[in-house]
Amino acid sequence: MPLLGFVLPFFAFAVVLLKNARLEDWKELAANGVLSLLGFSVTLRFIPRIKDKFTEAGLFGYDINKKGLAQGEKKIPEAVGLIPATIYILCICLLHLFRQSNNVELYTAAFASVTFMVLLGFADDVLNLKWRYKLILPLVASLPLLVLYTGGTCVLVPRPLRFLTKGKSLLELGILYYIYMAMLSVFCTNAINIYAGINGLEVGQSVIIALAVLLHNALQLHPSGNKDNLELLRQNHLFSIDLILPFYATSLALAYYNWYPSKVFVGDTFCYFSGMTFAMAAILAHFSEILLLFFIPQLINFIYSIPQLIGIVPCPRHRLPRLNRQTGKLEAIRSNLNLVNLTLWIIGPLTERQLCIVLCSFQAFCCAMGLLLRVWALTWLS
Amino acid sequence: MPLLGFVLPFFAFAVVLLKNARLEDWKELAANGVLSLLGFSVTLRFIPRIKDKFTEAGLFGYDINKKGLAQGEKKIPEAVGLIPATIYILCICLLHLFRQSNNVELYTAAFASVTFMVLLGFADDVLNLKWRYKLILPLVASLPLLVLYTGGTCVLVPRPLRFLTKGKSLLELGILYYIYMAMLSVFCTNAINIYAGINGLEVGQSVIIALAVLLHNALQLHPSGNKDNLELLRQNHLFSIDLILPFYATSLALAYYNWYPSKVFVGDTFCYFSGMTFAMAAILAHFSEILLLFFIPQLINFIYSIPQLIGIVPCPRHRLPRLNRQTGKLEAIRSNLNLVNLTLWIIGPLTERQLCIVLCSFQAFCCAMGLLLRVWALTWLS
Repeated sequence: MPLLGFVLPFFAFAVVLLKNARLEDWKELAANGVLSLLGFSVTLRFIPRIKDKFTEAGLFGYDINKKGLAQGEKKIPEAVGLIPATIYILCICLLHLFRQSNNVELYTAAFASVTFMVLLGFADDVLNLKWRYKLILPLVASLPLLVLYTGGTCVLVPRPLRFLTKGKSLLELGILYYIYMAMLSVFCTNAINIYAGINGLEVGQSVIIALAVLLHNALQLHPSGNKDNLELLRQNHLFSIDLILPFYATSLALAYYNWYPSKVFVGDTFCYFSGMTFAMAAILAHFSEILLLFFIPQLINFIYSIPQLIGIVPCPRHRLPRLNRQTGKLEAIRSNLNLVNLTLWIIGPLTERQLCIVLCSFQAFCCAMGLLLRVWALTWLS
Repeated sequence: MPLLGFVLPFFAFAVVLLKNARLEDWKELAANGVLSLLGFSVTLRFIPRIKDKFTEAGLFGYDINKKGLAQGEKKIPEAVGLIPATIYILCICLLHLFRQSNNVELYTAAFASVTFMVLLGFADDVLNLKWRYKLILPLVASLPLLVLYTGGTCVLVPRPLRFLTKGKSLLELGILYYIYMAMLSVFCTNAINIYAGINGLEVGQSVIIALAVLLHNALQLHPSGNKDNLELLRQNHLFSIDLILPFYATSLALAYYNWYPSKVFVGDTFCYFSGMTFAMAAILAHFSEILLLFFIPQLINFIYSIPQLIGIVPCPRHRLPRLNRQTGKLEAIRSNLNLVNLTLWIIGPLTERQLCIVLCSFQAFCCAMGLLLRVWALTWLS
């Protein structure tokens, strides 16, 4: 059961949380836990109940990696990410009632941006918008955050680069910080959206990143360093846990149905929802440098894809590997420049299930390295 | 051009505004005007560009009132309300940058609720959810408002009823006020949704109510009465104009395509969006009693529909009149208990276009009466 791999690290998070959280945090954390558990069970129940409505509405796809097999003939409901996303929005809404911290505006901004992103993602899934609209959608959805953001616009300058700022540790970015926030939203959403194409990959990577973010936040709840802003740091990480724990829970329920062989597809709805949730958490809790460490597979995939994305190499609609029907294994198509094909080219042919496990393991490895590096990075950066 | 009827009253609003608004309001009002005008033109351009995407996605319907005619065979894009709704959300978002008043939380709450309602409305249009879900959706979408609402929970007791409160003019409702807000959201959304079925009616009634709300707000910008809360009242009405003016603009563009003969259908997306926008404006700017005066046709339609809604009289999927192909006129079906059929039964057979003009005129009449009554009502209520 590879799905167990998505659950076990959660206990590490729980243990660190028990060690690091203060007594006064527990009301919020307990409410979050209960709501997330509810979110998980409701998502788990609703997906099989509603999924046929998606097929009836014409929202379905065929599993291209099983072309020529009986499984490849079945209509698989598409854009089912709408269900966990809606339940997530509800959880976040109700959680607000139990929150202690008073950064209501930012919480609502994140909430509004994620809701708007889900709306646009679902509209994209239904209407099959053109590529140029796709790129603009996350920018549009990040607008609520951009107009409501009232936090700082400084960034920490990494120590080795401080000669550029005459020794100053903080650099005031002003309007550039807003551009940076918008770009991070666009990157996170599209990075997950283009690292896709085999059963379970979109939601698998998201769940693993969510676990890494949760662990990072729990570790930081007992922060060291500059005493001045300890309380602020704590609040930030609680805030991020508020946003990510229900996301983890509802996505886990989706993973149960999306894992190989997929009974549902997640759609752009889920990829946008996932990317935007991470971007909001990272921006508002100020750990975007750390988030990028967790996004290394997506970064590699993005950079490696650039020749196709900008059109130097022809780009087909789906950049998938080829199924060898004799062996039942997927084989790399070398002209499709993405991490899925690169992995197959390096390791050799794999079944779809094996490939997803390999890619998820790589994701987990990068996240673990990120978590280890974070101690070093935090020292280096501050 | 009956559409002119939707535009001319706007000038009355503009004149009243010029008379009543203070100098310091004009930055916000001008920004709102410019953004609304932009919203109008973008909606007007985008609908014909994107509408075929809806048909391709299986989101289309046949015009039942033209059954048997050539026009009744055409696929008409459905749920096109998504376009003005999305553009509206963008306008509201950008408008925030120019707002002077500092009730950011409530503005965001309204924003989040409307966005969530559009998402659920569009999901309903795509997935054809069951009736029991439909009733719950507005309740779910009003959650962001309910959890973020921090305003007062008192209501004014009408003078003749003050013997019930031992002469007190304010009655503290507490939790009941939250229930009242939720109920108003459910009523407004469903009231518009069930007063539908002929070309142009859903958007026609919405545009007229929007004009009435705008006029009411403009008249109240120069309020009389208790001096203590004059400033608060002014802010409330500016707030409402912020929410309703872009709604009027984007809906007007939709009306252009939805008017008889409809080139697009508006869908539940629009009805929910429209109802929720009115509910938010009325709740947050505290004029829900006045709004209900503007909703008299919807109230009549709702009360008259009750026997069918609760199942005493059988309720078909569409409760439309019958087209007489000889005369080209619609005739009442007396077992369909709604205002559309009641009007035909009272006046006699009408063409669809005539019927819509009659119903919109009735809406305008009720709104005009509401505006006249409001002076009396404000005295009576306070």
